[in-house]
Amino acid sequence: MTGLLYDPNRLAAALSEAGLDALVATTAANVRYLTRFGKPGRSVAVVRRDDPARPILLAPAAELDYLIEDLAPGLAHHAWGDFFREEETGAHLDEVQLLVASAHRNRRPELDRTAMIATAATDLGLQGAKIGLDVAPANEPTLTEALRDHEVCEASAVLPRLRMRKTELEVARLQEAARIAESAILATVAIATPGVTQAELATEYRVAVAREGGLLRVDSVSVGTATVFGNANLPDSVLTPGDILRFDVGAIYAGYQSDLSRCFTLGEPSDKSRRYANAVIAGQSAALELLRPGVRTADVFAAAVAETRRAGIPHYDRTHVGHGIGLVGGYDAPLLAPGDPHVIQEGMVLCVETPYYEFGFGGVQIEDMVVVTDGGWRALSRLPRTFETL
Amino acid sequence: MTGLLYDPNRLAAALSEAGLDALVATTAANVRYLTRFGKPGRSVAVVRRDDPARPILLAPAAELDYLIEDLAPGLAHHAWGDFFREEETGAHLDEVQLLVASAHRNRRPELDRTAMIATAATDLGLQGAKIGLDVAPANEPTLTEALRDHEVCEASAVLPRLRMRKTELEVARLQEAARIAESAILATVAIATPGVTQAELATEYRVAVAREGGLLRVDSVSVGTATVFGNANLPDSVLTPGDILRFDVGAIYAGYQSDLSRCFTLGEPSDKSRRYANAVIAGQSAALELLRPGVRTADVFAAAVAETRRAGIPHYDRTHVGHGIGLVGGYDAPLLAPGDPHVIQEGMVLCVETPYYEFGFGGVQIEDMVVVTDGGWRALSRLPRTFETL
Repeated sequence: MTGLLYDPNRLAAALSEAGLDALVATTAANVRYLTRFGKPGRSVAVVRRDDPARPILLAPAAELDYLIEDLAPGLAHHAWGDFFREEETGAHLDEVQLLVASAHRNRRPELDRTAMIATAATDLGLQGAKIGLDVAPANEPTLTEALRDHEVCEASAVLPRLRMRKTELEVARLQEAARIAESAILATVAIATPGVTQAELATEYRVAVAREGGLLRVDSVSVGTATVFGNANLPDSVLTPGDILRFDVGAIYAGYQSDLSRCFTLGEPSDKSRRYANAVIAGQSAALELLRPGVRTADVFAAAVAETRRAGIPHYDRTHVGHGIGLVGGYDAPLLAPGDPHVIQEGMVLCVETPYYEFGFGGVQIEDMVVVTDGGWRALSRLPRTFETL
Repeated sequence: MTGLLYDPNRLAAALSEAGLDALVATTAANVRYLTRFGKPGRSVAVVRRDDPARPILLAPAAELDYLIEDLAPGLAHHAWGDFFREEETGAHLDEVQLLVASAHRNRRPELDRTAMIATAATDLGLQGAKIGLDVAPANEPTLTEALRDHEVCEASAVLPRLRMRKTELEVARLQEAARIAESAILATVAIATPGVTQAELATEYRVAVAREGGLLRVDSVSVGTATVFGNANLPDSVLTPGDILRFDVGAIYAGYQSDLSRCFTLGEPSDKSRRYANAVIAGQSAALELLRPGVRTADVFAAAVAETRRAGIPHYDRTHVGHGIGLVGGYDAPLLAPGDPHVIQEGMVLCVETPYYEFGFGGVQIEDMVVVTDGGWRALSRLPRTFETL
């Protein structure tokens, strides 16, 4: 396991294939992917095809200290703008303080983001190089202007394509994000007794995520007919015997997110609840049975929908039955959906899910995270795939 | 207190002044400001000058249920794209379910975001109208293309200028966000004994924010010489007698954020710690003494820096000593800084702060939230403005 989140050889190959000498990354997820920097907002990452294991981070001086939170060993970095941090005369600084102190000393107060990028491109010897940008150049006019001595082209597909297949370090972080969310689901289930409100359940979930060392991603905890909402919550809704308790939740660990779903029932469920809950579990199982390298994502979708219909929801329909997952900031490709062009590949981490929503009734769902292996997959989430009675 | 976050009369006046018939908002903070919609990511808000109290929300169908989480009474809304939610035959739906169900029925599955905006502009009778956009049209080429039958111009300054002065509903939310962060500071201080680690203190802060009903914004809790970092944290650093314990933290409540700072000392501080901590408190006091409508922001800055120098840190320097605060997603204007062109106005909510960072020593800081009133200001944060010994 190297200190990088990505595989430098695969990056170099991708740049080669795209005919690029270097890549300039500006989106939060792409900057974090290349540098591990924990405050990627306005920062920029540059990487050269002929030196793919040594990315360069360009960051605002005020945010340099984020270097210490997710330290990529040997990361080169440059800072623009000013910020006042003094140095005590004769102080002995430990290694970590020295890292930030020297980065601070070397900052370029006179530069802004655009000028920093232009300067870095020159310092890196990229004159005349063909540079790929991870957004459309039209959407970054000042940045494109800063790189006017170069051939700049859109290369927004390069990193998302690479990010589909996770490295070991990424899988470890995704697994920890899943563990945190599952622990928090169990902590919440432990207080699920008649009369508890949605607000109390959601607070318990949030507290448990924090206690387990995670940050919050999504926290839809719903009860009764409000399980139809899926995203949004009604804080005053009260858990009553026979109700479904639905979780569609996640956590964030070291920049990586989880997304998981389970439904429980408080006491005996109605026949319909049981039939529907078991149908979506059967649909997810059908998707998982098919999942292995080489299978088309659209076929995984078709299998899940067909089996959910057969198993108890004849009118079941969905836009997708899952998606890639990785760094915070949205889903990764692929989408397990009819129009998706991808084939399942080793190293993909996928959320496989079969949600169902019905006004009047409510909703049921199951969602798990798996990593695709050589011959199939391995689960990153561990809760039993059942509709459990509390 | 109306159901809107903004003052419709002031919005109409601002559109009039800018020569606009309507405004199309696309940034997350602006969309939430106009509609209260809790998932503003890809959504768009449209408001007409001649009907300023009735904004229109355009949202993806999959996210319609967020309408219920922060319901602006009477909000008009339209949804694009598809998402499957069934309706149980003959079900009785309560008012909230009916709201989302009817919004869902009226969705336009065949439209995408761009086509939805074009359609809405026509439906609203905006043909030929002069429409302001809250970003540069060059940065939203497809949206600008969708509005090609209109005169579209950049109006990115209109809402930030309006958002500087808060309404009662906004102040109430900001005050609650401050209360949550202060409660969490006190909960964390309660476990601050010798040997506790930064990770344990930060976890306690995060757990307390969740327990108090907030979401996390920033959570810099630092100890000892690591108080120099300000943003980033060293989880293994251990609290030791004589250490400074520094909080620069915030919480989010109903979309509004807090930003507060306090320093404590575990046992007796060094002379330098006491002198420096008291100096930044004196500097903040000087800023607060000057704060009232009509004063220039640059003068508030000058007063704070001069007094911090006089009171104990002769070399003190800063880029700013505070900022406006409001909806999640950054600071609001004004900035309490030398180059800032604004004058303090009634209704501004300001974070007033005097941070100091020194490698080798550490850092000290104080930061409070105040709302500017007719003749001065009223505090939204309530902790004593002292450097307390634990």
